[in-house]
Amino acid sequence: MLNYFSSNFSLGILGGGQLGKMMLYETRKYDIKTRVLDPNPEAPCKIACDHFTTGDLMDYDTVVNFGRKVDVLTFEIEGVNVAALKQLEQEGIKTWPSADTLEKIQNKGIQKNFYKEHQIPTADFQVFKTKNDLLEALKTEKINLPFVWKSTTGGYDGKGVSVIKSQKDLQELSDGECLVEDLIPFKNELAVIVARSVSGEVKTYPVVEMEFHPTANQVEYVICPARIEDKVAKKARELAVKVSQAFEHVGLLAVEMFQTEEDEILVNEVAPRPHNSGHYSIEASYTNQFEQQIRAILDLPLGNTESKVGGIMVNLVGDAEHEGEVIYKNIEQIMKMPGVTPHIYGKKITRPFRKMGHVTIVNEDLAEARRIAEEVKNSIKVISKE
Amino acid sequence: MLNYFSSNFSLGILGGGQLGKMMLYETRKYDIKTRVLDPNPEAPCKIACDHFTTGDLMDYDTVVNFGRKVDVLTFEIEGVNVAALKQLEQEGIKTWPSADTLEKIQNKGIQKNFYKEHQIPTADFQVFKTKNDLLEALKTEKINLPFVWKSTTGGYDGKGVSVIKSQKDLQELSDGECLVEDLIPFKNELAVIVARSVSGEVKTYPVVEMEFHPTANQVEYVICPARIEDKVAKKARELAVKVSQAFEHVGLLAVEMFQTEEDEILVNEVAPRPHNSGHYSIEASYTNQFEQQIRAILDLPLGNTESKVGGIMVNLVGDAEHEGEVIYKNIEQIMKMPGVTPHIYGKKITRPFRKMGHVTIVNEDLAEARRIAEEVKNSIKVISKE
Repeated sequence: MLNYFSSNFSLGILGGGQLGKMMLYETRKYDIKTRVLDPNPEAPCKIACDHFTTGDLMDYDTVVNFGRKVDVLTFEIEGVNVAALKQLEQEGIKTWPSADTLEKIQNKGIQKNFYKEHQIPTADFQVFKTKNDLLEALKTEKINLPFVWKSTTGGYDGKGVSVIKSQKDLQELSDGECLVEDLIPFKNELAVIVARSVSGEVKTYPVVEMEFHPTANQVEYVICPARIEDKVAKKARELAVKVSQAFEHVGLLAVEMFQTEEDEILVNEVAPRPHNSGHYSIEASYTNQFEQQIRAILDLPLGNTESKVGGIMVNLVGDAEHEGEVIYKNIEQIMKMPGVTPHIYGKKITRPFRKMGHVTIVNEDLAEARRIAEEVKNSIKVISKE
Repeated sequence: MLNYFSSNFSLGILGGGQLGKMMLYETRKYDIKTRVLDPNPEAPCKIACDHFTTGDLMDYDTVVNFGRKVDVLTFEIEGVNVAALKQLEQEGIKTWPSADTLEKIQNKGIQKNFYKEHQIPTADFQVFKTKNDLLEALKTEKINLPFVWKSTTGGYDGKGVSVIKSQKDLQELSDGECLVEDLIPFKNELAVIVARSVSGEVKTYPVVEMEFHPTANQVEYVICPARIEDKVAKKARELAVKVSQAFEHVGLLAVEMFQTEEDEILVNEVAPRPHNSGHYSIEASYTNQFEQQIRAILDLPLGNTESKVGGIMVNLVGDAEHEGEVIYKNIEQIMKMPGVTPHIYGKKITRPFRKMGHVTIVNEDLAEARRIAEEVKNSIKVISKE
């Protein structure tokens, strides 16, 4: 085994956002040297890594030159130059998840076809090269309203995804390659994070549940464990493992799923990295997702994925009415509540719906955590000065 | 309230060792700007703070100049220039714990006299200006063997403390001001961390117990909660609060205590900062000691001090036979054990008995945690390359 701890070993991270920042808490804990590449010179990872480089993650030369300076390379965002990763792998630099795996996930069309080929249950879909092709298919009734539209590339945080119910909705869609999926009437939206190490050790985290706002179509709470039957949870964890194995994925894979009215589990999509649905783990789990990611990609033994206590996560997004230098209004009020931990990502400017942080609520009693989570949600506001 | 989060507010930390490093995980989590001063340019805090300054913590001008750049100042080590802190306080820079409190704790003679004045139970003692005065007192039987000898200043990690049983032991003692204490036959050595905020909110952590090696006189395990009767635990927590109030202490105060054969609780000594006996809290507590320190000194609401699970801490000290570039032998073996988290402080060179890191073992069942802790202790070795 390589000596990672207080040694000259160096881990490279492509992307310097909040996921990278939270991963750096763990590399600091283990005293593992890090280099981070991000286009934003003020990225949340700017401090706490050993070397920060400003540069374009999609630029071949930038990524190759960065990667040559590290021993193992990973990413905290899917939008990185895959050809560069392939070149680095050929040069003997370990890249986890691999370029090959990322390539299958990066494009949602390829991702969906992969599920089909591997008998992984997923909503029926069709891929269209252009918006015109999609409109043509509608006209000839090869597809019908309503459906879910997804851009095959570049989607993030709800961008690049729309539910299309009317001709009017169609007008808003941008051009470019896209995916049309059946709209699944689901009971629950679930997620399972799978950790798979270089040598193939596999562990799953408990199933989490996204609780939606009763009227606005927006996730309000990520709840661990999901309030579902054990047999459904078991099925979801098994399916998540199957997906991870099929991709020969190394590292964390967040598998988002639908539980249908008939208790079928369908894979919605995956993220090959630590994920918003695993943030609760920092406070609730024996091994949080960021530490687990480090363990998996460095081929260290995986840690215990079970929870010490129930956990709920609430995203802190910028208020719709505010843009400017951020203020976390009433943060001291939520800090009074038991088991409440705010995480502030370090973005100076708030914008409507920008992800600025999250809050974790832990409690032995999940129902009590849920009650406190609602209080948190009703108290804190991400606004701007004046 | 001041706006600390993603703002221009800046917290200064005097000392850049492992305690500072673990505090920085929390300032990063809250996106609070930090400046750190330490004499060692390779100190563990070197990265992850916003500004690192190399300089002497005992030098008046260095500390004053550093302090003038921050809004609130704290320290992670007692050996700092108190006159400089007083000057900064006069200039309106908040210093927590205050210069006045630190002054009473920094010198162990003053600290012991303070306990006497405030009716805080502690072992009987005498202070001597020189080694000669001590020898004279022995000759005239004002004191008798055996006793505990402590240097009044500069003691740290067991340095500056000796149990004197014979004339031969006496010869080893250095000159300078010292304290002679009755040797207390104790059942348990306990500690309680008290958090007290600027506005006077007070919370105590559960009592922890130091378990000693059966033959070597060395703490092997810090165990939370202590395996003692509830009424003894209650007494210890109440006494710790009394000590914190008496010092008008702001921030964390670690109160080390003896439980005598008669279940009396005597204060041994205090540390006005996060403490080794609270490291278990990172994994076991709802609010870890480092986050609590930030909350207390910034006058934020204190967090829940109770534990999610049982916690045991094992120090990782350099092997007696090794000096040189560090290797953590068998670290991957302990990482396989459930609920085990190593913390590596980031010191490149190991030396006999140097504190290089610690390991936390958490489990719902404290007896099981204790069993695993022994396995950890018997597996990992801090050695040097060849």
